[in-house]
Amino acid sequence: MTFGVAVAGASGYAGGEILRLLAAHPEVEIGTLTAHSSAGRPLSEVQPQLGSLHNRLLVETSADSLAGHDVVFLALPHGQSAELAGRLGDSTLVVDCGADFRLRSPAAWETFYGSPHAGVWPYGLPELPGCREALRNTRRIAVPGCYPTAVTLALFPAFAAGLLEPEAVIVAASGTSGAGRAARTRLLGSEVMGSMSPYGVGGGHRHTPELVQNLSAAAGEAVTVSFTPTLAPMPRGILATCSARVREGVHEVRAAYEKAFADEPFVRLLPEGRWPSTSAVLGSNTAQVQMALDEGARRLVAVSAIDNLTKGTAGGAVQSMNIALGLPETLGLPMNGVAP
Amino acid sequence: MTFGVAVAGASGYAGGEILRLLAAHPEVEIGTLTAHSSAGRPLSEVQPQLGSLHNRLLVETSADSLAGHDVVFLALPHGQSAELAGRLGDSTLVVDCGADFRLRSPAAWETFYGSPHAGVWPYGLPELPGCREALRNTRRIAVPGCYPTAVTLALFPAFAAGLLEPEAVIVAASGTSGAGRAARTRLLGSEVMGSMSPYGVGGGHRHTPELVQNLSAAAGEAVTVSFTPTLAPMPRGILATCSARVREGVHEVRAAYEKAFADEPFVRLLPEGRWPSTSAVLGSNTAQVQMALDEGARRLVAVSAIDNLTKGTAGGAVQSMNIALGLPETLGLPMNGVAP
Amino acid sequence: MTFGVAVAGASGYAGGEILRLLAAHPEVEIGTLTAHSSAGRPLSEVQPQLGSLHNRLLVETSADSLAGHDVVFLALPHGQSAELAGRLGDSTLVVDCGADFRLRSPAAWETFYGSPHAGVWPYGLPELPGCREALRNTRRIAVPGCYPTAVTLALFPAFAAGLLEPEAVIVAASGTSGAGRAARTRLLGSEVMGSMSPYGVGGGHRHTPELVQNLSAAAGEAVTVSFTPTLAPMPRGILATCSARVREGVHEVRAAYEKAFADEPFVRLLPEGRWPSTSAVLGSNTAQVQMALDEGARRLVAVSAIDNLTKGTAGGAVQSMNIALGLPETLGLPMNGVAP
Amino acid sequence: MTFGVAVAGASGYAGGEILRLLAAHPEVEIGTLTAHSSAGRPLSEVQPQLGSLHNRLLVETSADSLAGHDVVFLALPHGQSAELAGRLGDSTLVVDCGADFRLRSPAAWETFYGSPHAGVWPYGLPELPGCREALRNTRRIAVPGCYPTAVTLALFPAFAAGLLEPEAVIVAASGTSGAGRAARTRLLGSEVMGSMSPYGVGGGHRHTPELVQNLSAAAGEAVTVSFTPTLAPMPRGILATCSARVREGVHEVRAAYEKAFADEPFVRLLPEGRWPSTSAVLGSNTAQVQMALDEGARRLVAVSAIDNLTKGTAGGAVQSMNIALGLPETLGLPMNGVAP
Repeated sequence: MTFGVAVAGASGYAGGEILRLLAAHPEVEIGTLTAHSSAGRPLSEVQPQLGSLHNRLLVETSADSLAGHDVVFLALPHGQSAELAGRLGDSTLVVDCGADFRLRSPAAWETFYGSPHAGVWPYGLPELPGCREALRNTRRIAVPGCYPTAVTLALFPAFAAGLLEPEAVIVAASGTSGAGRAARTRLLGSEVMGSMSPYGVGGGHRHTPELVQNLSAAAGEAVTVSFTPTLAPMPRGILATCSARVREGVHEVRAAYEKAFADEPFVRLLPEGRWPSTSAVLGSNTAQVQMALDEGARRLVAVSAIDNLTKGTAGGAVQSMNIALGLPETLGLPMNGVAP
Repeated sequence: MTFGVAVAGASGYAGGEILRLLAAHPEVEIGTLTAHSSAGRPLSEVQPQLGSLHNRLLVETSADSLAGHDVVFLALPHGQSAELAGRLGDSTLVVDCGADFRLRSPAAWETFYGSPHAGVWPYGLPELPGCREALRNTRRIAVPGCYPTAVTLALFPAFAAGLLEPEAVIVAASGTSGAGRAARTRLLGSEVMGSMSPYGVGGGHRHTPELVQNLSAAAGEAVTVSFTPTLAPMPRGILATCSARVREGVHEVRAAYEKAFADEPFVRLLPEGRWPSTSAVLGSNTAQVQMALDEGARRLVAVSAIDNLTKGTAGGAVQSMNIALGLPETLGLPMNGVAP
Repeated sequence: MTFGVAVAGASGYAGGEILRLLAAHPEVEIGTLTAHSSAGRPLSEVQPQLGSLHNRLLVETSADSLAGHDVVFLALPHGQSAELAGRLGDSTLVVDCGADFRLRSPAAWETFYGSPHAGVWPYGLPELPGCREALRNTRRIAVPGCYPTAVTLALFPAFAAGLLEPEAVIVAASGTSGAGRAARTRLLGSEVMGSMSPYGVGGGHRHTPELVQNLSAAAGEAVTVSFTPTLAPMPRGILATCSARVREGVHEVRAAYEKAFADEPFVRLLPEGRWPSTSAVLGSNTAQVQMALDEGARRLVAVSAIDNLTKGTAGGAVQSMNIALGLPETLGLPMNGVAP
Repeated sequence: MTFGVAVAGASGYAGGEILRLLAAHPEVEIGTLTAHSSAGRPLSEVQPQLGSLHNRLLVETSADSLAGHDVVFLALPHGQSAELAGRLGDSTLVVDCGADFRLRSPAAWETFYGSPHAGVWPYGLPELPGCREALRNTRRIAVPGCYPTAVTLALFPAFAAGLLEPEAVIVAASGTSGAGRAARTRLLGSEVMGSMSPYGVGGGHRHTPELVQNLSAAAGEAVTVSFTPTLAPMPRGILATCSARVREGVHEVRAAYEKAFADEPFVRLLPEGRWPSTSAVLGSNTAQVQMALDEGARRLVAVSAIDNLTKGTAGGAVQSMNIALGLPETLGLPMNGVAP
């Protein structure tokens, strides 16, 4: 059976990656593609890499243009999904790559986004305990943020196993595509090549409450999170370096990860002594994870690498779609990275 | 029907890319993987991006280890294919990614490679007139060099249409993976990031006689070629900027390209005014082509972009394999690039 | 004796580089710094790398704010220099980094810039025969374009020595800073990293008539130029690969280069067999040059590397200023690149 | 007065940067340049960026070849400095860029380096309390490691002011030149471009005990350090993201930094809200520092950026040399970065 799929926000980086994956998906037929400032232009002008779709046109984003599809992906700026989703029927599977429906806490939402809370949808991180079950047969999916995907996979097994004190320190490096396609001087190639720099330091990044939510849920208690994102000179990829103090008596952590990821098709716990790299997951839906226990500092250091646009956005979205539609979870999704 | 495939040289960049493509190919079962200095190691140590094959072991390259497969890909240093191929049966499809069987002229081979000429095999550039036919049912394929793939696609339509004087000037930029995986100081990241530099200037690059061969065949007369390769600060991709003086009276060139590529699944002649970029073809088997006629200089300038490891090596190899095996030519091959 | 210097356009990339060089110049006192959209902001916000000037403020660009300095550098968009320069006194040395006063041919100017021709000033490429003399005591300097600087240094010795047919084919790769600091999607880091692409193909780039002017002057006859610029994934640097057919009987070209550059402090003719790289000239005022005669194609291939912002703009400007002010030509200018 | 200076290890990245700085130093005459595998070659072959020294030859590293200079810089692999220094007279200023004389604890040395401890020399980080005084008139200097330079500048003011609990979590990204010039596959451009990856995770990096030493000295108590270095896709630069829990009652931290760096010429405490970037310090001896107090996590997050080869090695070495020789501390050292 083939599902008709529309993509709202097809001119952006997330939208382009969704289309790249859908074009290789055997049970999907790509329907309407929408955009805002690029509406009316051929897709090939804004996504020249999508040769297989080069005859498609972008139309204006609206509930009308998106109606009539089995699945609608929303790759829109934060705050635009709620109204649009409300006008799409309950039988349509709506997969929101924005932040609108990720946070359970209205207070956290309002603090970080400054607008009324729209609600909560099943969370599209199937590897997190409970999430896969909630995704089956749902017609609404909130795709996680890219940083939360990387960080949660790196830390939840240890928190869930009770190995860690409830505080986490996270420094993550992201490729520039995470900042989107809007033209800004600080994102020019001239500015970012050869440069590492932090942003949102001190707790200000909007993914912070999502990290707190995920890690606290895993730990079963409130976890404080110090999160510092940095911009790295590469187009794609997130490397998340995460640490937390281990509880007294804890001297072994690996077993918790082996158990958590034993049957996960898209998480690769690396052999001991080998460490993740963003290049190894480029274009794939795989997360690489590794950890070490630093006995000197009594901290677990867990590191994960994902492609922010694939596992961190579009791939995670398609993986969750597969579950919701009752398809094999791995259908159409690449497990191998494009390297070197 | 499924074909058993072995890969010799699976530890290198070309070998890794062949495996990435084969792993997504629906009619292929991946068999023996061989290497030399990495023999005995798990594939995952040298190709950590190939998560779907992480339990595979590398064995020593030999005719014995490669025997018994329907198809054998050779991704070996130049000069090693001939002997190995001679010991593989005639019923095995041998796809050589090295240079050994590309050149028709023994003299040109000996001048550029300094060893006896091994022979000529059907040439794996299906888009070149005559090649597709020669590939059907063959059991030996010489995969073109990466630069010749890019340059030939950019220029052969105009030469074949008789539009150009028989001289070509080519400056091509390649990503560093074209130089292979052997550790050399001049290829260190510290040396190549932020740097453009030429090499093999003045006619010395080994792909020069292959360019002469292809362009002369298209033109029906001897074409002289000035070829300057440059190393660009990116892992993958070739951008070939090619020009030749147009014959008197020629003021239109596009029609020749439209005709040449009308039915080609893996060549995308871009809409007028849009130019190829290597990022748009990353990881895909697509070549982007565009051209302009410079009336001031009376030269055609034709530009192509490919991924040197995909269309330029592994993808071209699999495309030719598909033809030789009677499979659909596009089977298992990505048409969409991983961008940004 | 110390000269007071103002910089108009201090918020851009060229302006920032001018300031970096002037801050290390022993006979210069940096005065007014102007900008347009950044006027009123501290320099440190837009040029955070200029630690030694972090307490400076940007003021609005105007003849009034620039008046009263011995030297005024103009690093403004094309077309803004003429009016401003007209309002600066004849005793002020005006160094224009824009294109307004580079071209001798009003027709060429109007074709490529679409506005009335402003005139011609002494040309700030001291290495070109006749230029150094014209710069002494001048109070107006037209700084060459970055591509013309690289290309002219690569080719003029051979043209001046009568070795070449009057046609040149040039493919040059430039770092992204050459495209300026204005925010544009196609210049985002996400778009340019990992990517090579051409632009202005077919004779359309505005530096083409300047190339024709310089090479024709050197050759003593009209030279046709095929010029293809490409954008390379690096912040700085130009690698110009230039070729032309050698005249019959010409089998040696190096002597012409040795003679031309024997006493040039900022041109380094490399030892035979070694080739320029942009990394080797990063941040320096040096041009590296090398050439080879391709007997197969009967073409000279000459390659040069410069830093587009240093020798290609700000360094060439300061070098010419030194000459005009009667200072040692090399004063305050770096000869060594920042590598790796 | 001019000082004769020799450089041992002039063929490496640190040696090249030392030479770039010395070539611009007004009170230095560059003497013997030594190397090992490159001995006998012209410097220009291995450091083509050093145009001003292109006629120099490399000679074999030995006490004899280094004798007779006022100053000798050692840029050698760890473990080679001690013997060589012992054979240079006490009146020679020996500036060791290796690790041999940095650690006070013989036990820490032996644990991390596996060889007998050679001793302790005055530590070349003038900004650290007590160091500048110890450097005056010394004839032996231990240049700090690149990571310890960045991290110590980011954290010592807060530790010295008693604001922090004695535990630090550090994640630092380094450009590839920090790994040196020896050819290794994992450092190839093909491997590192587009890639972030960690190494030495869990306390294994050799700079860890130096971090413990510096931060503990500042705090006046033993500080535990969790240090994770990561390799970033850029040739130069370190971005150190450092955090520690603030003591109860601490709600303000900036004053400690303002006091610590008020008179420091090479540390730039950025205006509030602006964050360091490695590009802004490229090629300069400046460290940029900024911090924020995360009240949610009750942690100070302090970030510094340096050029690992300049302030992190060669620039710090020359700065300390200036102090030891009684020269102005900033003499010959660039404060402005090469950006973009």
